[in-house]
Amino acid sequence: MTNTCKYSNNYSSSYFKRMKFFAIFLLSITYAALNGQISTISSPGNIVTLTFSMNPDGQPQYSILYKGKEVIQNSTLGVLFAEGKMVNGLLVTGMDTTSYNDKWTPVLGEVKTIQNNYKQLVVKLMDNGDKPKEMSIIFRVFDDGVGFRYHFPFQKNLAHFVVTDELSRFHLTGDHKAWWIPADYDTNEYTYSTSRLSEVNAKKQSDLHLEIGVRKVVDEYGVQTPLMMKTAEGLYINIHEAALVNYPAIQLHVDKINHELSSSLVPDTYGNKAYLQAPFSTPWRTIIISDKSTDILSSKLILNLNEPCKIKDISWVKPCKMIGIWWEMHVGKSTWDYAGTQDMHSWENLSNLKPTGKHGATTANTKRYIDFAAKNGFDGVLVEGWNVGWEDWNGKWKEDVFDFITPYPDYDVKELSAYAASKKIKIIMHHETSGSVTNYERWMDKAYSFMKENGYDAVKTGYVGKIIPRGEHHDGQWMVNHYNRVAAKTAEQKIMVDMHEPVRPTGMNRTYPNWFANEAARGNEFNAWSTGNPPEHETILPFTRLMGGPMDYTPGIFQIKLEKYGKKDNYVHTTLAKQLALYVTMYSPLQMAADLPENYEAQPDAFKFIRDVAVDWDDTKIIEAEPGDFITIARKAKRSKKWFVGAITDENSRVATVPLDFLDKGSNYVITIYKDASDAHWFKNPMAYRIEKFLVDSGSTLNIPLVEGGGFAASVIPATQTNIKGLKKYE
Amino acid sequence: MTNTCKYSNNYSSSYFKRMKFFAIFLLSITYAALNGQISTISSPGNIVTLTFSMNPDGQPQYSILYKGKEVIQNSTLGVLFAEGKMVNGLLVTGMDTTSYNDKWTPVLGEVKTIQNNYKQLVVKLMDNGDKPKEMSIIFRVFDDGVGFRYHFPFQKNLAHFVVTDELSRFHLTGDHKAWWIPADYDTNEYTYSTSRLSEVNAKKQSDLHLEIGVRKVVDEYGVQTPLMMKTAEGLYINIHEAALVNYPAIQLHVDKINHELSSSLVPDTYGNKAYLQAPFSTPWRTIIISDKSTDILSSKLILNLNEPCKIKDISWVKPCKMIGIWWEMHVGKSTWDYAGTQDMHSWENLSNLKPTGKHGATTANTKRYIDFAAKNGFDGVLVEGWNVGWEDWNGKWKEDVFDFITPYPDYDVKELSAYAASKKIKIIMHHETSGSVTNYERWMDKAYSFMKENGYDAVKTGYVGKIIPRGEHHDGQWMVNHYNRVAAKTAEQKIMVDMHEPVRPTGMNRTYPNWFANEAARGNEFNAWSTGNPPEHETILPFTRLMGGPMDYTPGIFQIKLEKYGKKDNYVHTTLAKQLALYVTMYSPLQMAADLPENYEAQPDAFKFIRDVAVDWDDTKIIEAEPGDFITIARKAKRSKKWFVGAITDENSRVATVPLDFLDKGSNYVITIYKDASDAHWFKNPMAYRIEKFLVDSGSTLNIPLVEGGGFAASVIPATQTNIKGLKKYE
Repeated sequence: MTNTCKYSNNYSSSYFKRMKFFAIFLLSITYAALNGQISTISSPGNIVTLTFSMNPDGQPQYSILYKGKEVIQNSTLGVLFAEGKMVNGLLVTGMDTTSYNDKWTPVLGEVKTIQNNYKQLVVKLMDNGDKPKEMSIIFRVFDDGVGFRYHFPFQKNLAHFVVTDELSRFHLTGDHKAWWIPADYDTNEYTYSTSRLSEVNAKKQSDLHLEIGVRKVVDEYGVQTPLMMKTAEGLYINIHEAALVNYPAIQLHVDKINHELSSSLVPDTYGNKAYLQAPFSTPWRTIIISDKSTDILSSKLILNLNEPCKIKDISWVKPCKMIGIWWEMHVGKSTWDYAGTQDMHSWENLSNLKPTGKHGATTANTKRYIDFAAKNGFDGVLVEGWNVGWEDWNGKWKEDVFDFITPYPDYDVKELSAYAASKKIKIIMHHETSGSVTNYERWMDKAYSFMKENGYDAVKTGYVGKIIPRGEHHDGQWMVNHYNRVAAKTAEQKIMVDMHEPVRPTGMNRTYPNWFANEAARGNEFNAWSTGNPPEHETILPFTRLMGGPMDYTPGIFQIKLEKYGKKDNYVHTTLAKQLALYVTMYSPLQMAADLPENYEAQPDAFKFIRDVAVDWDDTKIIEAEPGDFITIARKAKRSKKWFVGAITDENSRVATVPLDFLDKGSNYVITIYKDASDAHWFKNPMAYRIEKFLVDSGSTLNIPLVEGGGFAASVIPATQTNIKGLKKYE
Repeated sequence: MTNTCKYSNNYSSSYFKRMKFFAIFLLSITYAALNGQISTISSPGNIVTLTFSMNPDGQPQYSILYKGKEVIQNSTLGVLFAEGKMVNGLLVTGMDTTSYNDKWTPVLGEVKTIQNNYKQLVVKLMDNGDKPKEMSIIFRVFDDGVGFRYHFPFQKNLAHFVVTDELSRFHLTGDHKAWWIPADYDTNEYTYSTSRLSEVNAKKQSDLHLEIGVRKVVDEYGVQTPLMMKTAEGLYINIHEAALVNYPAIQLHVDKINHELSSSLVPDTYGNKAYLQAPFSTPWRTIIISDKSTDILSSKLILNLNEPCKIKDISWVKPCKMIGIWWEMHVGKSTWDYAGTQDMHSWENLSNLKPTGKHGATTANTKRYIDFAAKNGFDGVLVEGWNVGWEDWNGKWKEDVFDFITPYPDYDVKELSAYAASKKIKIIMHHETSGSVTNYERWMDKAYSFMKENGYDAVKTGYVGKIIPRGEHHDGQWMVNHYNRVAAKTAEQKIMVDMHEPVRPTGMNRTYPNWFANEAARGNEFNAWSTGNPPEHETILPFTRLMGGPMDYTPGIFQIKLEKYGKKDNYVHTTLAKQLALYVTMYSPLQMAADLPENYEAQPDAFKFIRDVAVDWDDTKIIEAEPGDFITIARKAKRSKKWFVGAITDENSRVATVPLDFLDKGSNYVITIYKDASDAHWFKNPMAYRIEKFLVDSGSTLNIPLVEGGGFAASVIPATQTNIKGLKKYE
């Protein structure tokens, strides 16, 4: 059936004609004025200046200065859709400048309060066709960068439209050094390449990574965001997006000749980018700029551009330190599956599975982890492989693969819920979708009800595999809407969520603080079964992936070499001390002590750091940092006087210098330093560490040597009569 | 993350080698024997004979004789998949013949019991590669035709596979006359074309139908099934499929030169046809053959090939006669939407809708329909437009369009549930998905719970619009799985379901009798707002669309000309008497009296037939029929001695001759005949009818003149002392 309707128009008196004529005349004068004009706004502290203008083709363009020097040359903006375009021949119909300056409190965060201080310019545009369309570009200028987005207001000539391309340009001033991963519609699990922009080759780089299950690189010269860059003059520039809602992820195409980046959106099966309805605002495109690399890491620009928290009652939103039945499967000690993945009889005959005896997620094993968690002050135990479906889950593009509510015969849900509750530990649910998202969405309501009925209030989700709906990609609009739906639904159910293999985050943890972590990058697990993560990897991630939000990196591996498990070619590429430091340098309100309990029991003195470290913070100091080289951070635990320090380095040794001037003046503190032994080395002798305790105060400065691929971690607690006994002052 | 596992094989003794060698030798001899052999099986009554053989290229082929004459010449079979093919170079590894003969009782049906009597041949095949794959072809030979399907058994060398093409051929003996609609991935709502197969032009035909919202014709020479044909010798052949499960719909490509039809499956966005896992059986391809056209209509071959009823407790599975707030919207008297479809403000601002006053589904109007239904013995009232979302629902490819649980402000769910219950009437739920199936699947559980909580136990669904997931089609595998999911889920919830705009049915109403009707063809509604349905339309549908299952055709329009509603170019293309006959000639356990109550109140004498007619049957006699020309059917109501007769004709007048020899011998009956007035004509004078009553018995023969586009309907009830008063015998 079809629905045919008529629309009638009753205007036609000559009075109206004359009024229309006069209005057009007036508007023409205004338009002429506006379109000749160049509009400049500066950040509140006059550090960043944005200039907007229209070029002779009627294209909107902007440029950015940082402390008076050009960072972004004139770069055009525009949007193409199936029903038309807002690209050239546009007219400015209005401009509006406002200021904003306020504080807000993140529910979970790196700091207690965040200042949001910017100048905003709204430019209203119209095309010059016979059915003119309207579009605004909104610029917000901060002292550490710029955000801009497109807005399509409610309007007569544009209702439903399909974006076929976005033409946002970033015309850089040179062939900057960049830390990048290939633009890929389905994965962000690459190691980072460091090169000039002109040397980017996404396809070549992608083909080196056969260990990544699903890859889809289409543009040889495409890179993902967050993109970290450094100019020859030592200026740091980071490009990403904020508030990715109902739109595909942005990627960047590199024009090697002109040093220009242009937006490239992830398509659906038809090559369309987004199906939209006005009024609509795109995500913010963010450009964070500073001459200090530490400013990049401490920037709150992306969070500030996100919508405030949507959850009314946030009493249940909590951080989490967890362990899990997980690494033992990655190192091959046990399996996710119950009946083996090679016996085809177990692939569909779910009622008659024959156990191999290697299943990890058993009632007994889970109790063991619960006991360990309770003994060591953890909040939760993640259990992967608890549910039927693992015999035939991966790489088959199979739709009906898990139902998220049926446990294996050896995993007793009720018994374990009671046991966990008695130990005041939460079991963390696991929902591996295997990329079959239509299946997951069919089960979501039941799966979340099942969780609540059985005392689970946090879930780790996964998207390993090609996406179903077939034709969609991990980073396309449909999947972005899915991840956001999950965040909203879990919030409704008072469930915390940690997503693995989704699109990389864009600050939505402000709006949905229950969405407290993501993987969305190459995590520690790759060390277990591939060439792994080079020593510099963790010195890059905070400048790239973590700009958009916390990462569930799963640090804390003590048994660095995996030959013990029969994997002689696999190992973590850091020292043990660096693994401890990661709890500070890789911000996440959800942190995992990823190793097996027995490996922690073997080194209880080092493990104490993990037991002590906080995951939620009142303050953060980025002490020193250089992308790809080193990071040193100090953080103050929430509602506490305790500080924790972490320093990491790449494949080069160095000395980390840390002035403790953030400590309360006039107070003494006890510092416990967990550092590399002098003969440690990430490859040759990774597990050698030393622990030292000293007295310190705000006048102290630490100088701690880090070996190749090494690090140090430290806890700094107020001195008491008891804990200072026998300690010397640090020098 | 990826999951890498190793598979180890421990067989290698020389004993096993020798045994393997001997087995291969023995098998070779057997294979040679089997592969030279021609295998012939005949139907139980020796009417249909199927011959199977392997051609010199190692391709399986079959041919069919009917009463000794060739109907299908040697036609090859095979399947192509991404991982290989089972097409040529195949070996027969086994053949097995069995017989089957049993009765079964449909829950709802045209007859009380159905005989299932066939001979079956199973041919086991293997390819000759180094990792040989296995496939069986199963043939069932009935006295009125053949069904065959492919089966992939559980096997070592084939687990998950993707069908890229099915190569089933039907090599006809000539350029038969055919009644066809274009092969279209998304719609079956075409008028039928009657032509020789060589004259098929699907694209040209499709382009004549701009009134159909979503069309997707790819093959100029493609037609849909069920395909009805008639040879020059007067033999009737119908090709379709049975038990469409986890597979796309079959369509047929016409080779005009060789008079050969070949299977063409509906693809997904990648051109793949089906994602499968062995063991798997394809749907049955069905070929119904008879020299009597009435045998085609009475064939139970397709139902017999379907799986038995899956519902354990069938006490709640009931037929339904309904009226509905529906036609008044189609004729423009009211609207589905509440706030108009032109005011863009109402397209997303769902909390502030301003009523136009034209909304059809109001509490008051629904009560009016409930009263009418109660007064006239109907079971239910369908209400369309009860739920928020109609302001912006169609043609926008919009995903989040309805939530299926939020009523408009003027539709009081609770009040109406109570009112309907007090009148012992059921309100029938309406779920228009608008093709946004991912949205519907997210809401299904809640939507069905909402139904049960509010006393609704039947739902009419709709799929108007382009499908989301984008890239999928109405007739592809993913959507087939969706419709089947809906049937299973509603069955679990004891809900009856009537689907509009789905893939055409294939006998699954045997397996899920709650799935009691579909539209899936061009229904009566097209007369309200398009060029409509020509007079021959209803004489074709039972030979085509209805071969796969009942149709919710929505007959019973009394106000034939729609000028009364301001639609002077729209009208139904039949007489009123023919509208009555359709309740008998268009089988469905769900029948709608589609017109507005006032039009029935204006002709209560004619309306009596609709009030009286049954919808569920103990027996059916196909009296006479010719596709495209006329159909006359008599049916006996379930658990009753009443019979109902219906006769329809195309644009030609005729006399319907109906021997009443099916009546109980020695009993008298009262017949009430509703026929065209002598000066009636579907266009010139459609609403003129006469009602006559007579006495009849099993010796009587009716001869009723039908005008152009006309018909007659009759109820035949046992004579009693009261009802025979004043009646003459029919002569």
